[in-house]
Amino acid sequence: MTLMTPELLSLKSTIEDALQHYLPTNSEISPMLVDAMRYSGLSGGKRIRPLLVCATCTGLGGALEDALAPACAVEFIHAYSLLHDDLPAMDDDELRHGLPSGHIKYGEATAILAGDALQALAFELLATAPGSRTDVRLTAVQVLAEASGWQGMVGGQSFDLASENKSLSLTELQSLHAAKTGALIKASVQIGALFGNPNLDAETYVLLTEFATRIGLAFQVVDDILDVTQTTETLGKPAGSDQKANKSTYPALLGLEQARAHASELLAEAEPMLKRAGMQHDLLNVIAHAIVDRVS
Amino acid sequence: MTLMTPELLSLKSTIEDALQHYLPTNSEISPMLVDAMRYSGLSGGKRIRPLLVCATCTGLGGALEDALAPACAVEFIHAYSLLHDDLPAMDDDELRHGLPSGHIKYGEATAILAGDALQALAFELLATAPGSRTDVRLTAVQVLAEASGWQGMVGGQSFDLASENKSLSLTELQSLHAAKTGALIKASVQIGALFGNPNLDAETYVLLTEFATRIGLAFQVVDDILDVTQTTETLGKPAGSDQKANKSTYPALLGLEQARAHASELLAEAEPMLKRAGMQHDLLNVIAHAIVDRVS
Repeated sequence: MTLMTPELLSLKSTIEDALQHYLPTNSEISPMLVDAMRYSGLSGGKRIRPLLVCATCTGLGGALEDALAPACAVEFIHAYSLLHDDLPAMDDDELRHGLPSGHIKYGEATAILAGDALQALAFELLATAPGSRTDVRLTAVQVLAEASGWQGMVGGQSFDLASENKSLSLTELQSLHAAKTGALIKASVQIGALFGNPNLDAETYVLLTEFATRIGLAFQVVDDILDVTQTTETLGKPAGSDQKANKSTYPALLGLEQARAHASELLAEAEPMLKRAGMQHDLLNVIAHAIVDRVS
Repeated sequence: MTLMTPELLSLKSTIEDALQHYLPTNSEISPMLVDAMRYSGLSGGKRIRPLLVCATCTGLGGALEDALAPACAVEFIHAYSLLHDDLPAMDDDELRHGLPSGHIKYGEATAILAGDALQALAFELLATAPGSRTDVRLTAVQVLAEASGWQGMVGGQSFDLASENKSLSLTELQSLHAAKTGALIKASVQIGALFGNPNLDAETYVLLTEFATRIGLAFQVVDDILDVTQTTETLGKPAGSDQKANKSTYPALLGLEQARAHASELLAEAEPMLKRAGMQHDLLNVIAHAIVDRVS
């Protein structure tokens, strides 16, 4: 991702230290499993979701240190989803963040199990997040479970696989991505909000949710655009994979220019919501721009 | 499982109604995923873990209706683990509870995703379990996440796969099973205890945990015995699979008679712990006997 400001880069580095910290370092019974979990959790990535958790939390006056455990929990869900999505039975991708994907490096069985263990670790981490109220942690578990399960991320991946070689309408494509990528991006902002201010008024929570919904959609529109306009080297994952799998995409449905305009519109809608939510700094806005203007 | 008393059979039936209730019934975006989740959650099984949750909860004076959501949560974790363990990349079993296993019926991709979604559903259900205190639900999330993750069930499955074609010592075999099957059985009793009496004294909690540790080991010893002594038809899963995969087992290490004696010893150690814990009925004891004396 380009357009990372020094402030975002510094936050990303803090998040990566926390990921290091919260991943298990060794296990007597399953050393390879732990290796694969660390490989998946630590081998790069834009860290969009944990950045959103941290920026939302601190933007509402919360402490950064209280945001790190929930930020890592969300990233572990994302990491597990990539491990499983890359499997031969799913998207069959051999490259991730410019490195061999999990099953290429560790074999399919370990990639499946490392994904399973990362999911459990995410919920363990949320349930035990330091410096937060019991009810905040419990609500966060609920938000993350709903966002990542059958109604959310996993449901979206299932829809995506079932949609290969089919033409989706724009509405169907939006439902697909609202679930597959949008739900976890939305949950990142919601969880950041819960930890940032446990007494947050519902109106601000809804505004931030609406912001996140638009940013989540914009993220996917840009992802689809990059898949056709960038090289495998730049992306760190196979370019042109949507076309290869005969998937419906925004550029295919709208054309490249219209798709770009759509992403910009979503950003333009999202920005005023942040202002109305009264954030104490503009980090969320910076992340939103980085999402739309990125080239990888 | 034989030796189910009318009381246990009635409880099992109540649990199966609750599983029906808590599984999603349809989804616009992913109908096949939801079908596969229901198939996996509802196609039979002994329901040992949810029985343990319910019996522990009510034995400590809790209401059965408060135990049902956590009981289903534990069973969903078990169901997801079977979906994933049966995959070609893992144990490659085509039969489960006398029916085609998940990937045979729905394909590998959907079996992986249905497992992932069942895990998320388990944590969602625990976090939203009705009639319980916030702190109880949160502690239960933590207990379930630890028991099912890299230190527990998933770690044990990874250890198991890494141990094929190797000779394990008795101590190694016990570590393997303490993680692979023991951790979730222990968590079932612990979660039942948390919901049964949120103010439970630590001594009783420890006694019940010790009881569960022994019952969990006995369960696996008996499982290994049945794998060599019973038919595929009786088991509802392929008999002789341990030998086929060249796995270390209790009968192989101890001999069949010694293995049987070991299971009986574990039961004999466990029973007095229940008495000291002051349970209000003997259902846990009945389940313990059913585990050791079962023929499938």
